Amino acid sequence: MEKIRRREFLRSSGLSLLPVIIPAPLTAAIANSQDNIPPDLPMVNFVSDTLLVNPGEQLAQLQKIQQTKAIEADFYGRSGVVAALEKRCADIMGKESAKFFPSGTMANQLALKVLSGENTKIFVQETSHIFRDEADAAQSVHGKRLMPLAKGAPAFTLEDLQQAVEYQEKEEVFHSGIGAVSIECPVRRCDGKRVPFNEIKRISEWCRQKGYKLHLDGARLHLAAAFGNIPLKEYAALFDTVYISLYKYLGAMSGAILCGDKALTEKMDHLIKIHGGAIYQNWHNAALALDAIDQFEARIRKAADIASALFNRLNKRAELKISALPEGTNIFHMKLQPGIDLAKWANILRTSHNIVIPRRMGEDVVRLFVNESISLRDSSQLYDAFVNSLEQAKKA
Amino acid sequence: MEKIRRREFLRSSGLSLLPVIIPAPLTAAIANSQDNIPPDLPMVNFVSDTLLVNPGEQLAQLQKIQQTKAIEADFYGRSGVVAALEKRCADIMGKESAKFFPSGTMANQLALKVLSGENTKIFVQETSHIFRDEADAAQSVHGKRLMPLAKGAPAFTLEDLQQAVEYQEKEEVFHSGIGAVSIECPVRRCDGKRVPFNEIKRISEWCRQKGYKLHLDGARLHLAAAFGNIPLKEYAALFDTVYISLYKYLGAMSGAILCGDKALTEKMDHLIKIHGGAIYQNWHNAALALDAIDQFEARIRKAADIASALFNRLNKRAELKISALPEGTNIFHMKLQPGIDLAKWANILRTSHNIVIPRRMGEDVVRLFVNESISLRDSSQLYDAFVNSLEQAKKA
Repeated sequence: MEKIRRREFLRSSGLSLLPVIIPAPLTAAIANSQDNIPPDLPMVNFVSDTLLVNPGEQLAQLQKIQQTKAIEADFYGRSGVVAALEKRCADIMGKESAKFFPSGTMANQLALKVLSGENTKIFVQETSHIFRDEADAAQSVHGKRLMPLAKGAPAFTLEDLQQAVEYQEKEEVFHSGIGAVSIECPVRRCDGKRVPFNEIKRISEWCRQKGYKLHLDGARLHLAAAFGNIPLKEYAALFDTVYISLYKYLGAMSGAILCGDKALTEKMDHLIKIHGGAIYQNWHNAALALDAIDQFEARIRKAADIASALFNRLNKRAELKISALPEGTNIFHMKLQPGIDLAKWANILRTSHNIVIPRRMGEDVVRLFVNESISLRDSSQLYDAFVNSLEQAKKA
Repeated sequence: MEKIRRREFLRSSGLSLLPVIIPAPLTAAIANSQDNIPPDLPMVNFVSDTLLVNPGEQLAQLQKIQQTKAIEADFYGRSGVVAALEKRCADIMGKESAKFFPSGTMANQLALKVLSGENTKIFVQETSHIFRDEADAAQSVHGKRLMPLAKGAPAFTLEDLQQAVEYQEKEEVFHSGIGAVSIECPVRRCDGKRVPFNEIKRISEWCRQKGYKLHLDGARLHLAAAFGNIPLKEYAALFDTVYISLYKYLGAMSGAILCGDKALTEKMDHLIKIHGGAIYQNWHNAALALDAIDQFEARIRKAADIASALFNRLNKRAELKISALPEGTNIFHMKLQPGIDLAKWANILRTSHNIVIPRRMGEDVVRLFVNESISLRDSSQLYDAFVNSLEQAKKA
């Protein structure tokens, strides 16, 4: 599909709304595109949580893994490299068990279904993926009622939760029961902001006292761990279940892992099957993620350091101001001097330097995503590319 | 995982029961195994509907496709090569539209959900995958009641269906409504037997008169088409929806396609999402299936001819008798002369000739599956291998 037609397709299909939370249509188009870009410069992008790879590059990566050690096929999500990945994830998170899921939505939904049992009420952030971006699956498929907290904000406090529970207990006659509490961290719809760790601790303690189960939507938990300097295990210890994505930055083409007690994960094979998620082979996803997962934290920390130095240096110039966010992770806000044509600048960066930044503003800022790709190039080369392209954009 | 441990795992996990309908644990173990087998003889197997390939071979196939024409990535099941496959399948089946699903179970279940609307009763074969092998998803997830017909048999007749409808209308007070009728063809649990085409025609005509929607579980429909010499489109024309599998023999690692009216397939994006089946990237499955789908019918017809000649020649010997089944497809029954040790014979065939046959009897017959792999070798060489290994097995 030509790029222009692809864009039209995305618009007409409603998919153009997705980039708010998932910049992937853009990234896929870029990764797929056959533009004449400098061949000796690996692409650095500021539009995704990960490297932008096309199918050819993904296949090359799988071949590399296969050549190191023959990949062992799975069978409907069991055995082989899928089982190996599950074991590794359970170890990393300090949980008893882990289970592969075909999608994060399925992992979130089935975790909440099992955690809440016969109770129907589940408290979530109003900004969360579960509340806003799973198409009301909890309500329509699983018969659960999601109770949103802290409208528009990344985090609710323990007091928000306590008040909501109290209100519901006082103001409703039929007590259908509080099933679970879910926390997303970092929160994609809030530019990757983290829920303050101390608040999670307080919420976790109180939930344990009350017997409420606690789920972590940690699709991008490694980013919270790296940018907030809090070990994955310390997060995981506060929750009954932890979901992480395999494709946001761990290199897989799809898939998710849910960690938790064995008693819980053992229920999942049946639930995955009846919801249509028992998939014949997923060894490619497991092999890609298993290859990446051990090195990822070090890599993203290195990327964060490089980005920090680059942004500090760029901030000495008048044209732009790049800021980290409070409780932020890998998303930075860039403000531009009036008169700079963002689309034009982005185009020069792309075609002359193979650097990808957003071509459109989100409200009044440009959101820059930091990912591993920044480590692929010399940082003074990156600085020069930014500065030279800015000068060029201002000129013509 | 060593082979012995893998087998133990399969047994303890209950997966050892699956080979009844899916011989894949066996096939995966064989494809993964690193035995010293003759390197110049491509493997011919009689235990699967398809070639046995390991991840290395599957990756090589994907690379081959990629080198012919760069694969275009999809985005959550839309655009790219997934859209191309959908279009191709709709054309092949003569339907308005087609939709990719992550699993056949999800395709079957969501087809029946949409076809039946608010009605709850769905008539199916008692031997069908939908009735026996989808873990009661229709009942537990979708609130449908499956009404099994023709216990133990591959097919129900129009009269069976009419009587069941009449009984239900007379003998139940609250008429919750007949939602849909489903036919599986060929029927895996009945050794791949086909539902007689003329019976399907009669059922289809009557269902149209009555306004009952008709679904075809055609996971292996190409086998019915090739072995029964009935074009795919003639099958598809009799049904409102047709599901075909992408991995039974079309080379994919997983996935399914559902063909039908656009008004129906357009409802699927939302339903797939809420059931957790919206998967980030599936271009590998689509590329593999798209590469295979046009040549498959010719290839399986050729394989059927080779098998027929080989089996006829072998049947002239006293040791065995291989029979096609009435309304059969690619599964043949082999009876052995008393005293022949099947496991021993199979072992010689495997290690000396790289030919795989089942090592265990199913009841009193050995089920031989015909697939494309039979075309990989000279057929008189295959005949000699069978005869020589039989002689050897009888000796020691």
